[in-house]
Amino acid sequence: MAKVLCVLYDDPVDGYPKAYARDSIPRIERYPGGQTAPTPKKIDFKPGTLLGSVSGGLGLRKFLEGLGHAFVVTSDKEGDASVFERELPDADIVISQPFWPAYLTAPRIAKAKKLKLAITAGIGSDHVDLEAAIKRGITVAEVTYSNSISVSEHVVMMILALVRNYIPSYNWVVAGGWNIADCVARSYDLEGMDVGTVAAGRIGLAVLRRLKPFDVRLHYTDRHRLPEQVEKELNLTYHQNVESMVRLCDVVTINAPLHAETEHLFDDALIAKMKRGAYLVNTARGKICDRDAVVRALQSGQLAGYAGDVWFPQPAPKDHPWRTMPHHGMTPHISGTSLSAQARYAAGTREILECWFEGRPIREEYLIVDGGKLAGTGAHSYSVGKRA
Amino acid sequence: MAKVLCVLYDDPVDGYPKAYARDSIPRIERYPGGQTAPTPKKIDFKPGTLLGSVSGGLGLRKFLEGLGHAFVVTSDKEGDASVFERELPDADIVISQPFWPAYLTAPRIAKAKKLKLAITAGIGSDHVDLEAAIKRGITVAEVTYSNSISVSEHVVMMILALVRNYIPSYNWVVAGGWNIADCVARSYDLEGMDVGTVAAGRIGLAVLRRLKPFDVRLHYTDRHRLPEQVEKELNLTYHQNVESMVRLCDVVTINAPLHAETEHLFDDALIAKMKRGAYLVNTARGKICDRDAVVRALQSGQLAGYAGDVWFPQPAPKDHPWRTMPHHGMTPHISGTSLSAQARYAAGTREILECWFEGRPIREEYLIVDGGKLAGTGAHSYSVGKRA
Repeated sequence: MAKVLCVLYDDPVDGYPKAYARDSIPRIERYPGGQTAPTPKKIDFKPGTLLGSVSGGLGLRKFLEGLGHAFVVTSDKEGDASVFERELPDADIVISQPFWPAYLTAPRIAKAKKLKLAITAGIGSDHVDLEAAIKRGITVAEVTYSNSISVSEHVVMMILALVRNYIPSYNWVVAGGWNIADCVARSYDLEGMDVGTVAAGRIGLAVLRRLKPFDVRLHYTDRHRLPEQVEKELNLTYHQNVESMVRLCDVVTINAPLHAETEHLFDDALIAKMKRGAYLVNTARGKICDRDAVVRALQSGQLAGYAGDVWFPQPAPKDHPWRTMPHHGMTPHISGTSLSAQARYAAGTREILECWFEGRPIREEYLIVDGGKLAGTGAHSYSVGKRA
Repeated sequence: MAKVLCVLYDDPVDGYPKAYARDSIPRIERYPGGQTAPTPKKIDFKPGTLLGSVSGGLGLRKFLEGLGHAFVVTSDKEGDASVFERELPDADIVISQPFWPAYLTAPRIAKAKKLKLAITAGIGSDHVDLEAAIKRGITVAEVTYSNSISVSEHVVMMILALVRNYIPSYNWVVAGGWNIADCVARSYDLEGMDVGTVAAGRIGLAVLRRLKPFDVRLHYTDRHRLPEQVEKELNLTYHQNVESMVRLCDVVTINAPLHAETEHLFDDALIAKMKRGAYLVNTARGKICDRDAVVRALQSGQLAGYAGDVWFPQPAPKDHPWRTMPHHGMTPHISGTSLSAQARYAAGTREILECWFEGRPIREEYLIVDGGKLAGTGAHSYSVGKRA
């Protein structure tokens, strides 16, 4: 019997909601392009409820314990004395999430002698040292597409909120004011602007599609060129490199995985090449931006706004400067863990586990590392190499 | 020579920005459907700067004083001792705005013996008693389409922000927390939801177009049916009445003018017909919703969220309950007065004044009341009758 070690974020401070805001969530059966939503044989949870925090346990407890497996769920993941470190040495399977990442570093992988499968309940497995996983023959899988659309909605929301100066204007309401001029002195329309995405994979393309009717000019850069028909349909301008794109853009959104080439991509030098007063939205990974370069650019006015929901490390410390820098619209890492997304990644995690225990192949599109090499989605999205 | 009395919102509390966040705004030459943006012979302002507050004076001072007209600009509009009341009796032209409305009631129109032209620098002339204007032969004009797209962007932003629980999540960042579960216990994806607009005029249709790629089911109700081809393109479901629509919708957005039929349309009875946990976004006019019914619905959970930027009266008093009700995402009335919108409505106001002084006809699409009857846009959008 296996031991499944699952690291999830903390429960709500006031306990689980007595009643949820809504009675149900829409049923999504397919993603754009035709991939089906997760298809586990069964689920033991109600879609639309909290599944991603400790007590929710991804709705897996009944299933795993019913099969006789041990299921350890914790949010305690930092330092040698943490539950995660303590339980890791004899864990067969680790489940973690980008929102509350249990960093599976090379030293930890070395300690986890029995580890055979690392599942990301969500998308983005950069918290796993993929090189170490490859060497050890560990399978790394994630629930590809489960929350891509969720993130793309967050991106569009944040672009509009920065450009239109939403949150400062809301704050005037709460403060009792009616300071129209103060609200709008930094408020613009998105219409007519140049908007570019760094990477046009599932999320980036979904962002482009959602922005199309805003009558903006759309740009992208990616190492994979989109089909010509998509470029035409969305009237996209392709850039071979990010420098050429950011020079022209009023809004830049980052939708790339974190790997050696994207780490600290947005540093002082690249931000200096952007238009003065551009907006930068990063829901990809915090480390793609140089933390202090972003702060400096907001202070100087080189950037008019920065938003996103990814930080490094996570959770962000209380004194992380992105909490207090001017003109930001940050959230904690939540874009991919709406209740709607939780239902999908919980079902997808169950699907992966069902396959694993029954000896059936895990869907190709869920695989990042398998058989000692990058595989499936991993081969498309990740590079393996030393990061700065 | 004419006396032009112009009521604008107050200047920023900290003075005009030393530098604006951005160096320019995109040039918009045409609106959807082909109407041209304002075409004054000349402008004396820099697009992208504050024009809608007192010192900005809509960029009209040089033009008006150059022609020898008197130009009085004030934000002081309430009560008998206000500058507005004092200057009104011998004003030939009144310019006002929805964001800071100088209510031209019947008694005030009776006092304004010389008044011949009332211009709304923006869209929505419900602050003018149209019946009284008709009787007196006053021309009422507004800068149709100048900020329709601005408002539609605000609507989409607010829908996403409510559904995804943006502002409470941002507040956790500022408070130093990383409370993922607290943020997402009320966070959903928009994808797959049913979204309906009350009225599908310029703004409502622009909202529908922008929502289409979010893979939602779109609904509308309006007294004018959209062309069949538009219904097909956007896959719209038409409802003959608002009750039939709100029963089905997860999100309802109000994009109708205020008139006798829409005043207090969303009262306890109609809100009770909505789905439990629906979201309501009203950027049209505050009076279309019953103030206290909205508060009650948020408190009971019948509504999961309410946002918008319109209130009654305006400015909203400090103790207006919409400032403090749960799960709201309100702004002051700013959606139609982004710097981008200001450039267009200032140019449009100038265009109307140029026509007026030169004896040329004002564009048909700008007219609300002319020649003693509803005219142009007014005939399409407004009803004249007693309001509750």
